[in-house]
Amino acid sequence: MAINLSPPTELHTVKGIKLATICAGISQKKQHDLILLECVKNSSVSTVFTRNLFCAAPVTVAKQHLAKGQARYFIINSGNANAATGDSGIDHALKICQAIAQQTETKPHQILPFSTGVIGEPLAYQKIIAQLPTLISSLQADQWIAAAHAMMTTDTVAKGFSQQVNIDGDEITITGIAKGSGMIKPNMATMLAFIAIDAEVKQSLLDRMLNTAINKSFNRITVDGDTSTNDACCLVATGQSKLNITDEHDPAYALLLSAVEKIFINLAQAIIRDGEGAQKFVQIQIKDGKDQHECLAIAYRIAESPLVKTALTASDPNWGRILAAIGNAGIQNLDINHVNIFLGELCIFKDGKRSATYVEEVAQKIMSQPEIHITITLGRGQHQETIWTTDMSHEYITINASYRS
Amino acid sequence: MAINLSPPTELHTVKGIKLATICAGISQKKQHDLILLECVKNSSVSTVFTRNLFCAAPVTVAKQHLAKGQARYFIINSGNANAATGDSGIDHALKICQAIAQQTETKPHQILPFSTGVIGEPLAYQKIIAQLPTLISSLQADQWIAAAHAMMTTDTVAKGFSQQVNIDGDEITITGIAKGSGMIKPNMATMLAFIAIDAEVKQSLLDRMLNTAINKSFNRITVDGDTSTNDACCLVATGQSKLNITDEHDPAYALLLSAVEKIFINLAQAIIRDGEGAQKFVQIQIKDGKDQHECLAIAYRIAESPLVKTALTASDPNWGRILAAIGNAGIQNLDINHVNIFLGELCIFKDGKRSATYVEEVAQKIMSQPEIHITITLGRGQHQETIWTTDMSHEYITINASYRS
Repeated sequence: MAINLSPPTELHTVKGIKLATICAGISQKKQHDLILLECVKNSSVSTVFTRNLFCAAPVTVAKQHLAKGQARYFIINSGNANAATGDSGIDHALKICQAIAQQTETKPHQILPFSTGVIGEPLAYQKIIAQLPTLISSLQADQWIAAAHAMMTTDTVAKGFSQQVNIDGDEITITGIAKGSGMIKPNMATMLAFIAIDAEVKQSLLDRMLNTAINKSFNRITVDGDTSTNDACCLVATGQSKLNITDEHDPAYALLLSAVEKIFINLAQAIIRDGEGAQKFVQIQIKDGKDQHECLAIAYRIAESPLVKTALTASDPNWGRILAAIGNAGIQNLDINHVNIFLGELCIFKDGKRSATYVEEVAQKIMSQPEIHITITLGRGQHQETIWTTDMSHEYITINASYRS
Repeated sequence: MAINLSPPTELHTVKGIKLATICAGISQKKQHDLILLECVKNSSVSTVFTRNLFCAAPVTVAKQHLAKGQARYFIINSGNANAATGDSGIDHALKICQAIAQQTETKPHQILPFSTGVIGEPLAYQKIIAQLPTLISSLQADQWIAAAHAMMTTDTVAKGFSQQVNIDGDEITITGIAKGSGMIKPNMATMLAFIAIDAEVKQSLLDRMLNTAINKSFNRITVDGDTSTNDACCLVATGQSKLNITDEHDPAYALLLSAVEKIFINLAQAIIRDGEGAQKFVQIQIKDGKDQHECLAIAYRIAESPLVKTALTASDPNWGRILAAIGNAGIQNLDINHVNIFLGELCIFKDGKRSATYVEEVAQKIMSQPEIHITITLGRGQHQETIWTTDMSHEYITINASYRS
């Protein structure tokens, strides 16, 4: 059951983007599992892919296509990841791109394929190709919500956010959708996200915007520390509004970035709120660290400790487990006597031992909330980092230990 | 329920070692929770401690004492870790050592304290001191099994192994006991192990023997990737047999090391067989790697992946999750086309895709065994490493999500 998360009921259309969804029979769930997204000519597209060494066939193909020039269509299927499928997997992804190119009078390299679902099964690419004429003819601007639904795999709630912001007198729309629930970890885990803005943004600035926003959102979440073979985040600027950003020092860039970041953070947090078996939405903030590396190392060590995660499930303020995780993060010369641990506003550990202000009942009450903030101050620098994670419940085991989830 | 593991029914006495156990009321389980182990004068003692940055008070004290000279007594309590207890924790550990020294006519630095149990609670050291006269007067050679039981915390089975080996016409006895069940991970996690031999071994050689044996046993196991603040492994050579090893090139050293390694591996595997909620005992072997680093990085990434662990629980031959874990181990330039994955003897992944020999039913049958061997060949070197781990079951969550386990 997702934590404080509702499916989108309204997403603004983005000038220059059209979408269509259909049931191609790839997913066993007999629901829409295929999406076509069209970007208007001259759109800029920035994409970040999984860093898992064994990336899936569609990732390999999409990277090659992006290198050749302007992308115009995204074809996205759920139900099958087309991963670990060898040379035939590449061939299948290419065949789909060729079929779309033929029917849309574009080049095959202008088509980017994305897949999510089971690893190692051959993709029934003929089923996808058979649906292309219908998909292409039904492209419409108002299909964002349908697309958010069609991407879902183990997700229980569709994820989409939208915002309009006035910049230089022009109303700019930002709309994004994402899928992901488990196997989530920095560097694009089992997730897909597509975010579009109708401003014009120079390609190099769009790349920078994507990286900046990702490092505050999708690269700051973890469910189980596992990453997948397939994942991708695309940011599209269609250039259909009057705003044209060509200089990073233009105040409009900062304004647009800020709005884009909000959508990215909402989507990333939505993935955690819908984390597999999640009963808690947990923010871990590390403050007063020496540098980014140590703040993130400690934050992730806590977030991925099964002992911390199960204590969160039990609403047990077991700060000993948090402390052991900090001590296990591989940081040199960290002095325990300068480390403070807070649950919400309550200091629970200070001066190398349980804080004098610690009251078990109060700590337990904070831990029983569906949203928990853990803050650690290291007392040795100026850097801080925030990440989001889930607890680890029986439901997580049930979801992942059901045969071939 | 431990996997193929029975408690010891007979452990050989080791000349020069005496033990006693008693109920001091530290553990809430109202069982023996306090152990005194006496080493005869002139014994050599080698010890490895936790590498968790925040080591517990007894670890700090034991390290300081070892630096000052020959250890004669180990005082070991279960039920309370005396960890994250600040300066008073150190003071309590020292007071116990001083009391033992007074009553045994030794120096305080000849006493090594060990604690295991709950973190962050003050240790009721007076209860321990009150039991010392009885403990000291009841020291006997045949109390190894009682000691193995008294160390247990979340363990469900006591762990002890013993062996006699004839070296140079002399019968050498090796006996060891250990505790540990969760929070197990290389570099001495929540575990204590005490192993004694009655040969004489030069201190520097005993240190080397301990390190060699640990790197094939306790440093090759993981339950959940978490490490604790308290753990220690002690190897004692009492010098009470005729054998005296002073040279590493003496064939007797190799013979003794081999016998010691067997006891270490049995104890380490016993900890995994009794892993929290374990339903499977899993061996992960990485072969044909470039070096130790990459073999261990991949092995632990697989062993600690919650998705792999839950697939093991489900007896699901989900090699896609194994593959994703390998790809997520941070190894440079690993070619998926040279990676083979075996379940038992069955090749399930080869040439970048599911192996032609893969038969789902056969793979599933292998996965439903209580002992599972996963072998990965990397096809790029000569190095190999073997580690042992467990699956992750509902029982693991139940054990660790019960309030203040």
